[in-house]
Amino acid sequence: MSGTAVSNANSRTRRVADLAAGEEFHSGTYEVTREGIRQFAAEFDPQAFHLMDDPKSFFGEQVASGWHTAAITMRLFVEALPLAGGRVGAGVDGLKWPAPVRPGDTLQVKATVKDVKASRSKPGTYILTVLVETSNQSGQLVQTMTPTVVVREPGEKPS
Amino acid sequence: MSGTAVSNANSRTRRVADLAAGEEFHSGTYEVTREGIRQFAAEFDPQAFHLMDDPKSFFGEQVASGWHTAAITMRLFVEALPLAGGRVGAGVDGLKWPAPVRPGDTLQVKATVKDVKASRSKPGTYILTVLVETSNQSGQLVQTMTPTVVVREPGEKPS
Repeated sequence: MSGTAVSNANSRTRRVADLAAGEEFHSGTYEVTREGIRQFAAEFDPQAFHLMDDPKSFFGEQVASGWHTAAITMRLFVEALPLAGGRVGAGVDGLKWPAPVRPGDTLQVKATVKDVKASRSKPGTYILTVLVETSNQSGQLVQTMTPTVVVREPGEKPS
Repeated sequence: MSGTAVSNANSRTRRVADLAAGEEFHSGTYEVTREGIRQFAAEFDPQAFHLMDDPKSFFGEQVASGWHTAAITMRLFVEALPLAGGRVGAGVDGLKWPAPVRPGDTLQVKATVKDVKASRSKPGTYILTVLVETSNQSGQLVQTMTPTVVVREPGEKPS
């Protein structure tokens, strides 16, 4: 484990067909540790300023890889909005990291439904677009993105 | 380790100021293991079809989280195009996963320089836009994205 989910949102599993644009969902929190940042970076993004405090770098201290922030966000997003049938990423628009994540930061996700479409060609399959915003303990945005996910509603017959 | 870098690209570190649009860089390869897929999913994307073979899912078998593919891609991208001064992600356009990654797949990255701009406000800082394409051993694209990264050239005085 590279961090700790210190609280869980009390979300119940939703059916995608029942979601409406504008609905908001909030995750629990996830505490990012120095060792977690180092481990993720060693495996996936081995740049000095992710592995250790690097006074000469952009940040002057150790910060998390943006891909680590993205991975933590996915975990919080799955918790914030559990979907019967799961979700498969089709693509992501506008992935941005407006501020770095530092050791000890506690992250939380807000997911706002933007659009839900039933697939015409595949009955029981829905295309869901969601604005996913990740903030730290000060309320500062550390990541924003708008993923489009494919959800197959269980109990509806696939084509 | 959730996978094995089985070969490394023989890249030398480049200065961002010397890169030209159209230049291509190829990474070494990375073998994705069943256990690696499970470990990443358990921590960051705990959906059944990432944790195990799930005959009822979209895929009918275990597949990697797209965020795992993205993290592996970052590692291969850093190898393919080592930059003096490192790189910091500003944002990513058009992140897509056109095909799933399965246990035993071997991934490789091609990075094509799209644009290099010197920052006007911060001397020694460059904004680099790169098309990053990740393929499996059959040459099938499993991820595409166009990140914009900020690179501070070492030896040039920051503002």
